[in-house]
Amino acid sequence: MEVVNIAAKLDLFTEHWQPRIVGELNDSYVKLVKLKGEFVWHNHENEDELFLVVKGHLTIKLRDRDLSVSAGEFAIIPRGVEHCPVADEEVHVLLLEPKTTRNTGDLHNERTFESRWI
Amino acid sequence: MEVVNIAAKLDLFTEHWQPRIVGELNDSYVKLVKLKGEFVWHNHENEDELFLVVKGHLTIKLRDRDLSVSAGEFAIIPRGVEHCPVADEEVHVLLLEPKTTRNTGDLHNERTFESRWI
Repeated sequence: MEVVNIAAKLDLFTEHWQPRIVGELNDSYVKLVKLKGEFVWHNHENEDELFLVVKGHLTIKLRDRDLSVSAGEFAIIPRGVEHCPVADEEVHVLLLEPKTTRNTGDLHNERTFESRWI
Repeated sequence: MEVVNIAAKLDLFTEHWQPRIVGELNDSYVKLVKLKGEFVWHNHENEDELFLVVKGHLTIKLRDRDLSVSAGEFAIIPRGVEHCPVADEEVHVLLLEPKTTRNTGDLHNERTFESRWI
């Protein structure tokens, strides 16, 4: 049992779109990720996913509209819902999602990243 | 699917030790709670619980030591671990815990509160 300082963990890496694991509870991981640019459209068949913005501003494109999430706000994307995160400037995000969640969801491509602990 | 502003939700209530539900994902709720003073020693038999401090400073007493959690930090209390939250000054906390979690854990007393959505 440790106390996790979010800013200190974020200082440990610079890569974009590569979530790091910083906690686990029940069947889920808490992850931190830095985002910049546009990701890929994907969905998670069996996993709901929480995006809590720590710094910056995140757009989550949905097929019918965009969600606009600023620091101090969160959005939950239910399983099966196609989404595409976009960050015009670098954004720092805390993710909460089941351990089974792949960052690219139903896709497996060059953006796929196996999250690891930091 | 909505974007939740944490500060705006916290403005909607003033009571201490009465968590409000602001999101759900997988089998868990995201809750917000204001804490001040000392709670009761309890544990959650089957649920791990995340405390993310949004504002202020929280002490989580354990039987063998204290965890000190400031704004921008989180701690996860595993199931079965006895703990007692203490807040010398008001603290605002985001909780993530399974829907089955009772705020007083193994106890049912005058501090027990049935969380509701805001």
